Amino acid sequence: MSLAFPAPASTKVIERLSKIVGAEHVSVSPINRLAYARDMSPMVLLRQSEGLVDHYPDVVVWPGSEDEVAAVVREAGELDMPIVPFGAGSGVAGGVLPIRGGITVDVKRLQRIHDVSDEDLTVAAEAGVMGQTLENELNHRGYTMGHFPSSIYCSTLGGWIAARSAGQMSSLYGKIEDMILGMTWVLPGGRVVKTPAAPRALSGPDFKQLFIGSEGTLGIVTSAVCRIWPAPAARRFAAFQFPDVQRGTAAMREIMQTGLRPAALRLYDPLDTLIVGSRGTESAGGLSDYLPLETLARRIRSVVPGFFKSTQRFMHQYARLANKLEALAKDGALMILVFEGSERVAGYEHETALRICERLDGRNRGPEPAHRWFERRHHVSFLMNKVYYHHAFVDTIEVATTWDRVVDLYESVREAIKPIAFIMAHFSHAYPEGCSIYFTFLSSAPTVEDAETTHRKVWDAAMEQTVRLKATVSHHHGIGLFKSRYLREELGEIFSVYRHLKDAADPAGLLNPGKMGL
Amino acid sequence: MSLAFPAPASTKVIERLSKIVGAEHVSVSPINRLAYARDMSPMVLLRQSEGLVDHYPDVVVWPGSEDEVAAVVREAGELDMPIVPFGAGSGVAGGVLPIRGGITVDVKRLQRIHDVSDEDLTVAAEAGVMGQTLENELNHRGYTMGHFPSSIYCSTLGGWIAARSAGQMSSLYGKIEDMILGMTWVLPGGRVVKTPAAPRALSGPDFKQLFIGSEGTLGIVTSAVCRIWPAPAARRFAAFQFPDVQRGTAAMREIMQTGLRPAALRLYDPLDTLIVGSRGTESAGGLSDYLPLETLARRIRSVVPGFFKSTQRFMHQYARLANKLEALAKDGALMILVFEGSERVAGYEHETALRICERLDGRNRGPEPAHRWFERRHHVSFLMNKVYYHHAFVDTIEVATTWDRVVDLYESVREAIKPIAFIMAHFSHAYPEGCSIYFTFLSSAPTVEDAETTHRKVWDAAMEQTVRLKATVSHHHGIGLFKSRYLREELGEIFSVYRHLKDAADPAGLLNPGKMGL
Repeated sequence: MSLAFPAPASTKVIERLSKIVGAEHVSVSPINRLAYARDMSPMVLLRQSEGLVDHYPDVVVWPGSEDEVAAVVREAGELDMPIVPFGAGSGVAGGVLPIRGGITVDVKRLQRIHDVSDEDLTVAAEAGVMGQTLENELNHRGYTMGHFPSSIYCSTLGGWIAARSAGQMSSLYGKIEDMILGMTWVLPGGRVVKTPAAPRALSGPDFKQLFIGSEGTLGIVTSAVCRIWPAPAARRFAAFQFPDVQRGTAAMREIMQTGLRPAALRLYDPLDTLIVGSRGTESAGGLSDYLPLETLARRIRSVVPGFFKSTQRFMHQYARLANKLEALAKDGALMILVFEGSERVAGYEHETALRICERLDGRNRGPEPAHRWFERRHHVSFLMNKVYYHHAFVDTIEVATTWDRVVDLYESVREAIKPIAFIMAHFSHAYPEGCSIYFTFLSSAPTVEDAETTHRKVWDAAMEQTVRLKATVSHHHGIGLFKSRYLREELGEIFSVYRHLKDAADPAGLLNPGKMGL
Repeated sequence: MSLAFPAPASTKVIERLSKIVGAEHVSVSPINRLAYARDMSPMVLLRQSEGLVDHYPDVVVWPGSEDEVAAVVREAGELDMPIVPFGAGSGVAGGVLPIRGGITVDVKRLQRIHDVSDEDLTVAAEAGVMGQTLENELNHRGYTMGHFPSSIYCSTLGGWIAARSAGQMSSLYGKIEDMILGMTWVLPGGRVVKTPAAPRALSGPDFKQLFIGSEGTLGIVTSAVCRIWPAPAARRFAAFQFPDVQRGTAAMREIMQTGLRPAALRLYDPLDTLIVGSRGTESAGGLSDYLPLETLARRIRSVVPGFFKSTQRFMHQYARLANKLEALAKDGALMILVFEGSERVAGYEHETALRICERLDGRNRGPEPAHRWFERRHHVSFLMNKVYYHHAFVDTIEVATTWDRVVDLYESVREAIKPIAFIMAHFSHAYPEGCSIYFTFLSSAPTVEDAETTHRKVWDAAMEQTVRLKATVSHHHGIGLFKSRYLREELGEIFSVYRHLKDAADPAGLLNPGKMGL
């Protein structure tokens, strides 16, 4: 298929939707249908850069209130049209692709920040508010939500909830599911339900945990009450170089099991560390924090002078490059730590972590690498598009497991992917019982079809190891369209529970059809 | 109805169940059927003490493995018999009452502690293990689970999960839903499903949160993987007297919002404080921690000499007593605090909390009151039976709300109950956004019917205020049979989601029928 558009929604549909949201908030224009035909998935972007678009929404609507969202969902039921909820489209798993056409519902007009409670430390906000807008408003009043996904400039509160988002400071503030005290959503059929925002809101099942992470398959979130915190009075930075990831992850483990709560705790593998960390040039965040290829190319050139001249050439030479870099990657694994909170808490936790790292063979690199990471931590998601020229592509795979299998999982996935693509990783989002591993792989191919084949091979190889080691196939990027099969493999029998729930809640299968393996 | 037993299960049923679990693990004996006809709900105990038993199981079985539990559930489906899962029967909401007869499945033979991981700090255990047995085994290896419900001697891991249990140290270690990393349960129909125990186990909905708190209506939990912690190296105690609950709860709020994590943080209202706190006699835990009436009578006598001679007489005089005590209750509200962890963490948090309490008009009472509470904190649940002679009864109501409504909720419920029963309260299980209020009420009546009328009046009055203030009707005791109506009121539209789920999962309605308002 190509940019030749399939027929849009009929006049009747447009009229019925216009009655609900107003004619100016309904569009079947080609530019809008194209804009809502993609998320930030690498293969989708790559195909789109070649003029290949597989699915378009029949129509895009922008409801202005919860009632309008509910009415659109009701109307869709009557029209028997699929509904795709849309936040800011920064997902990387195909979650908002309109694979059966239908109505794409962009909730960004639901962006009110209703209420900040100084007494309860909560904020009530609508689902379409952009992440950084919400954080700015909180900062203005002396608070923080503590949720900093790298997509914060291009993702919404509703999107965070839909995909069980994790921010870069999740070790301290938790993942989004830890922050949501109450929420409101629209069920299939258009009924609005709301959980109270009492602490541990109710006895009985925690129903909101069924909707958090359901990526629009069970309903559309319209607003939430979230926990907030006083903006931190103090911040401490630290960085350590460990001989290898074994000792680095052992230190992460001890830091978490001691009960410390670093705001950020990240360990870069040797390859990642080599390229940007050990030379201490413009950044000490890992490569995977800085995906734009021009920057990457410049950095690698500083390690392997003259090795390649252009982004494109680099991408075709990744195998040779990887071998050469591996041989150079002898400086071990860089850990960065950030502590924040009151002066006393941050100081105490910083000091305690330093002692743990030193005891476990970490070499103190001072605060600078962590400080630099902190300053540039959001410079990824919204800059990524340039990568996709020249048939080059980059993607990330974020899995998670318990400490006993973390190194095994890291090595297994790495060994499986190395023959296919350039791969590196960092360890982050640590818990007392384990952490996530965030792999970044880069590759290229002469044609889109070749790129897709390579991309699929990498994912299949990584997921085979992940499922074999009973790790989780996604820690926070979600399942969407592309990880459907892996989710079914991970869940096994429980998948049938999900299937059952979906059939009971949405018998016509209109809500975000084809996603989550359903 | 009375102790005249209805007919037990038929020979055919006994034979079919015996084939699964062995004849020695199936019983229709009167003593077993009587033992499984009750939980620890006050009105159930009161009726039973008068020989009034409303419902009996047709048969009791003790499966010895997960496979046997699954087979029993399958068999029950074929026999079209209700199933009531049973742990240790210490619930106080009627959750295990066999109101439609059927098969009571006691899982206590599933008591293996499979695996303690020193690397991941996790324990895998079966659902029937008794709380204190599990904790002892962990202590023996240098760990703690950190879960200390006052029922710990007479409740099981499976029961904790079924009812979303909270331990006395939940401010530090979390509620049970925070500790469960993975679990296995048997679905209606007998299928076994298992969530992986990876950190934040899966993308997509957190299905285990649907089963945690479902009190056997959606399945029977058979095992779980739980987070554990190193046994604390140090512990610090503190107690403060606040002028009133307003200032006491303000201090609780600031302690939690500062990010401190006290293991225990409890504030007793003036009445509770007066009776046991301010005289510093045998205990400084609140009255509601020490329900045996003999002790209570002795303590009140030390405040109001000669006021009553016997427990029975006291119970009939509670109204006069309450007025007299209220007039004396001028010492304000006692807060106790316990901090634990490493020497440095406990020391730091202790010191910081002291400063907060002093700044907010707390008078430092030294460590003793908290220390005494700590030593005696489990002396409640398994001693409670004596209360129920003489038509006296005691019950507890545990609600929760956000800080902005905590004092309002406390006063509203107290005012509503005061005309009906002797009532006092403490505030505990604090979160950054609010806390729970644990009311204890005492009353008596000449007949069981009168007692039931009074009991119902108290609950209705308390729940009316709770629902009016949009607070949660139960923080951790569960819903069971007796709070069904209140749960429906709290949930509103969401209840239809639960109803829908139940109908889809268990169309014949065999799993713990009639509970949770279903």
